[in-house]
Amino acid sequence: MRLQKYGLNPGRIHHVFISHLHGDHVFGLFGLLSSLGMMGRKVPLHLYGPPELEELMDYYGRFFGPLAFELKFVSPPPNGDYIYECDKMSVTAIPLKHRITAFGYLFREKGRALNVRKEQIETYGLGIADMVKIKRGEDHITRDGVIVPNSQLTLPPYKKRSYAYISDTVYDPGLAEQVRGVDLLFHEATFAETDKKLAKKTLHSTAAQAATLASDAGVKKLLIGHFSTRYKDPALLETEAKKVFNETVGVKDGDIYSVPLKRQKRE
Amino acid sequence: MRLQKYGLNPGRIHHVFISHLHGDHVFGLFGLLSSLGMMGRKVPLHLYGPPELEELMDYYGRFFGPLAFELKFVSPPPNGDYIYECDKMSVTAIPLKHRITAFGYLFREKGRALNVRKEQIETYGLGIADMVKIKRGEDHITRDGVIVPNSQLTLPPYKKRSYAYISDTVYDPGLAEQVRGVDLLFHEATFAETDKKLAKKTLHSTAAQAATLASDAGVKKLLIGHFSTRYKDPALLETEAKKVFNETVGVKDGDIYSVPLKRQKRE
Repeated sequence: MRLQKYGLNPGRIHHVFISHLHGDHVFGLFGLLSSLGMMGRKVPLHLYGPPELEELMDYYGRFFGPLAFELKFVSPPPNGDYIYECDKMSVTAIPLKHRITAFGYLFREKGRALNVRKEQIETYGLGIADMVKIKRGEDHITRDGVIVPNSQLTLPPYKKRSYAYISDTVYDPGLAEQVRGVDLLFHEATFAETDKKLAKKTLHSTAAQAATLASDAGVKKLLIGHFSTRYKDPALLETEAKKVFNETVGVKDGDIYSVPLKRQKRE
Repeated sequence: MRLQKYGLNPGRIHHVFISHLHGDHVFGLFGLLSSLGMMGRKVPLHLYGPPELEELMDYYGRFFGPLAFELKFVSPPPNGDYIYECDKMSVTAIPLKHRITAFGYLFREKGRALNVRKEQIETYGLGIADMVKIKRGEDHITRDGVIVPNSQLTLPPYKKRSYAYISDTVYDPGLAEQVRGVDLLFHEATFAETDKKLAKKTLHSTAAQAATLASDAGVKKLLIGHFSTRYKDPALLETEAKKVFNETVGVKDGDIYSVPLKRQKRE
């Protein structure tokens, strides 16, 4: 229902990453599966999460009938390898410290094919075979044997974008290394500083702790959310975080943040 | 979340009646249990529904941990007895014809204590013991042995209100007998008349069928809902139903309909 509300087509979802099996992080999956079933989905849906997720979903089938599409489960590999990879991106699971097995996820874009400068196509009379090589980053060799460097033929490559999602977890300084320099970091911020002890006890983080991690990791921008309902005004949590890391935004369901594509600078 | 949106306090809920175990009729229960747990509920929650409901809820505990409050399960008694009864009301389960075991529920108010006319209290110098008897419907006997009829001492009693909830079911004319004369009937109306065959095939009803049942049963007012998302404008379904039974309203989540308390007329 939320996807519908935000104008998103559930049919376009092929991969779902679940952090842990607490209700507020997994119950929505039941409704999504039902909706996809009603919509006549036939292609598989890939579910990533703790091993217990597969067992939980078995009960979906048991009570609500078999789905007409396949569920493919992947649990984080113990050696830290990618949990998902395609030609466009890779995803790594990040073990978190919460009351039950929980994972954050790091999404890293792969390099895109280079864009060849239009005027160079004419200048050197480039054919399709030449273009394929140049897009891959190779230099061009003319019929006369002159080497034209790739950097002269192409526009600067796009920067590879990255996004890390960290929820739920106690403040864990060790996470900084794993999300170093990402463009966008979502980090849970359940509590305000006054409830620091409660955060530790329930294995959650405060807004300032999320900001400290973002600062230590040198991320570009921090999104905080998962605020406890005890705070009437979540702006308080954003304010606390901004004191530590100014590039912080408090977010709620349905907010959208894009990481714009930017080209690298060449020397 | 919906309860919160509509300003309802989940802590005040003590009894939940589940019609059947299809996702759109039961998934919300998971979130409700989690929310009640977070709110520190200690008193039991009574759940009424098909026998499989208890088994399903066992898996809640298995995956999401034990609740600090008790769940008490009641399945419809096979002899048609009340599934719930207190001093204010009774609830009867109505077996429906759907793809899986499903029940409607009929809520009937019990008679309230009579209101004694203020002026009569003075006239006859009524004491507390007298009042208790009169509120129960007894006549009053003065010290002189004169019998004052109850109807002279009290305001006319309130009419007992009733509400029936019927979803999901194929059109079943036999239901009319069970919901005869209720003040308010909710009946599912998944399909329009053009999709009558589909309604029969999927064991759902059309808006006109719901209205036919309401008319046959002589109910006061009909609410229809559970519209298929295939209809861009649910007003179409309301229009179709009103042609058969004019006292029909198409409803959506969060709409509130009250049945006003009215006094009976005395001869």
